[in-house]
Amino acid sequence: MIHPIPPGTRDVLPDEMRELRAISEALRSTFEQHGYGEVWTPTLEYEEVLRTGDESAAGSSYRLFDEGGALLALRSDMTIPIARLIASRYADTRPPIRLCYVAHAYRAVVRGSGQPREFLQAGIELVGAPPPDGDVEVVAVALAALEQAGLRRYRLGIGDGSLYRALLESFEVPAAERLPLLEALARRDLVGLEVRLQRLGLAPDAERLLARLATLRGGPEVLDQVDGPLSGAVENLRRCYELLAERGLADRVIIDLGLVRDLGYYTGAVFEVYDPAVGFALGGGGRYDDLLGRFGRSLPACGIAFDLQRVHVAQTEEERLG
Amino acid sequence: MIHPIPPGTRDVLPDEMRELRAISEALRSTFEQHGYGEVWTPTLEYEEVLRTGDESAAGSSYRLFDEGGALLALRSDMTIPIARLIASRYADTRPPIRLCYVAHAYRAVVRGSGQPREFLQAGIELVGAPPPDGDVEVVAVALAALEQAGLRRYRLGIGDGSLYRALLESFEVPAAERLPLLEALARRDLVGLEVRLQRLGLAPDAERLLARLATLRGGPEVLDQVDGPLSGAVENLRRCYELLAERGLADRVIIDLGLVRDLGYYTGAVFEVYDPAVGFALGGGGRYDDLLGRFGRSLPACGIAFDLQRVHVAQTEEERLG
Repeated sequence: MIHPIPPGTRDVLPDEMRELRAISEALRSTFEQHGYGEVWTPTLEYEEVLRTGDESAAGSSYRLFDEGGALLALRSDMTIPIARLIASRYADTRPPIRLCYVAHAYRAVVRGSGQPREFLQAGIELVGAPPPDGDVEVVAVALAALEQAGLRRYRLGIGDGSLYRALLESFEVPAAERLPLLEALARRDLVGLEVRLQRLGLAPDAERLLARLATLRGGPEVLDQVDGPLSGAVENLRRCYELLAERGLADRVIIDLGLVRDLGYYTGAVFEVYDPAVGFALGGGGRYDDLLGRFGRSLPACGIAFDLQRVHVAQTEEERLG
Repeated sequence: MIHPIPPGTRDVLPDEMRELRAISEALRSTFEQHGYGEVWTPTLEYEEVLRTGDESAAGSSYRLFDEGGALLALRSDMTIPIARLIASRYADTRPPIRLCYVAHAYRAVVRGSGQPREFLQAGIELVGAPPPDGDVEVVAVALAALEQAGLRRYRLGIGDGSLYRALLESFEVPAAERLPLLEALARRDLVGLEVRLQRLGLAPDAERLLARLATLRGGPEVLDQVDGPLSGAVENLRRCYELLAERGLADRVIIDLGLVRDLGYYTGAVFEVYDPAVGFALGGGGRYDDLLGRFGRSLPACGIAFDLQRVHVAQTEEERLG
C-alpha cells in the first residue's frame, strides 16, 4: 500500500539523516565558534509581516487561515523572520548582531518542476556591519563552515546584486524591460539575455557591456574590464577580494559579475556557493541594507545560507569522485 | 515597531536555544545509543493520509490547498507520519523497527487558551514489539533519556488506554455517554466525572469502581484493588512494573489507572512523564497496535514523545529549587 507524500517533499531515513545531522552540526558549530548565536522563529507567521520584508517572497509562500481567520504563511526563508526578530527583540542591542539558524523553509513551486517545497537551511545573518568588512566576514565564516563540513572542492562566487540594475538604469533601459533581463540573467540564460538586449536598440557599447558583464567570471582581473557607472560596486568587490586574499581565502573565491540572486532584497554583494562535483549551487546570500529598515530598525546587513540537502549531495559526490 | 507573531508561537533567542539544543542532543543521542535511527518526514502531508491514521487528529491540524488544489495539512504529531513511513519504506523490513525523531508539530488551538500551536517534540517509535517487553523498552529508553538530559526528579506514570473503555463497555454504558466520560477523565476532572457517572444509574458497585479507578495511583499495590473485566490490562501493567523493577527503575514509575491520553489510537499501555518541579506533563505516549494496520502493515507498536520546551522549563525549575 503506497501512501504518497506531496511532490517536492521527502522522507529521510536514518543512514541519510545521520549524515545530514553531521553536516548541520558542523555548520552550526562553526557559526557558533564565530560568535553567531542560534535562534528559532515560528514556522508560521502573519502573512502581512512576511510581506513587509519582501512583496515577491510572500507570493511563493504557502498560506492558510488560522482558526481566528488571520492569514498565516509558512516562512519561505529565515532572513525576513530574523529581520523582524531584530527589530522586535534586539531593538536596543548595539550592533553588530550575529545570529544563525538551522531550519526548514517552504516554497510553493510549479508542479512537476522537481523543485523542493521543503528545504533545510543553515545560515548566518550579520547585522550592523557595513561593506566591505561585513561581506568579508560572512564569506569567511561560510568558507570555514564548508571546510568543517568536510567539503574540499567548494568555491564561492561573489558578485554585486545592484550592479546590473544600476547599469540598466544608467543606460535608460525602460523599467518594464528590466525585470525580464534580470530574470534571464538569474537563470544564466545568456542566449535569451542577448536576444532581449538586441531588441532594446541601445548604443553598441552599452549593449556589448551588458552582454559581456553576464560572462565575466574569474580572478580580480575581471574587475579591470569594467568601470564607469559600476565603479562603486567594483571598488567594493576589489576590496572584498583583497581582504579575503589577506586571509588566505583567495583560491576559494571567484568574482562573478553576472551573478544575480533572485530574491528582491539584495542591495550589494551577492554570494553563491558551488562545488564542481555537482551542477547546482549549494547556497547563497548577500547584502540587504534596506530590509531591516522596513521593520523599523535601519541597519546594514549581510547573510548567507546553505541548502543542507545539496551540501550533502556534494559531499557524497566528492567522495565518489575521490 | 512591534511586528506580532501568531499566538501560540515563539521566538527563541540564543541563550534559551543553546539549552534547548543541549536537551535535544541528550535525548537524541540516548535514543540512538539504544538503536533508534533518526528519521525526518515532511512537515506538510496530504490531509487524507494523516486522516488515515486518526480521524480526530486531522481535525485539529492546519490545512491548506497547494498550488495544484490538493489539500495538505501540517503534521500534528510524528507518530502518524512514521506509521505511514513504516508501511511505505519499511514494508519488507523484519521487525522490530526502532525509529526516533526531533521535529516540530503543529496544532490549531482555541484562541486565548495559551496553548502552543507549534511545539518541538523528541520521541521514539518501537514497531513490531508486543507487550510487555515493547512497553518496558520504551519506558526504559525514555527514563534513560531524561536522566541524560540532566533531570533528577522525573517520574513516569503508566496506565492503560483501553482499560476505562473496556469497563464502560462491560457495564453497558451507552456509547454516546462514553466519550464525555473519557474526556472528563483525560482532563482529570474528577468532580465532572462523578456527576456524569451518577446520572447513568449504574449498579452501585460499577459506579464505585468507575469513580475509584480514576484516582488509583501508586505502586503495584493499586493493581490488587481491581480485577474482573480488567484482568488483561492489569496483568500487563503488573508484568511491566516487575520488568522495570528488575531494571532498577521501579522508583521512577507510578502506576496510574486513571491515566487516559487524549489521542484516539492508544490500545494498551499509556505513559505520561511528570516532574514535581512543574505542574504539567513533559511528554507521553503509549501502545497503538491498530495504527500501522490502517496503513497496510499490521504490527504492534509503542512510542513516547517529549515536549522539549516543557522539559527545558522543568530542568530550569529543578535547578532553581536546588
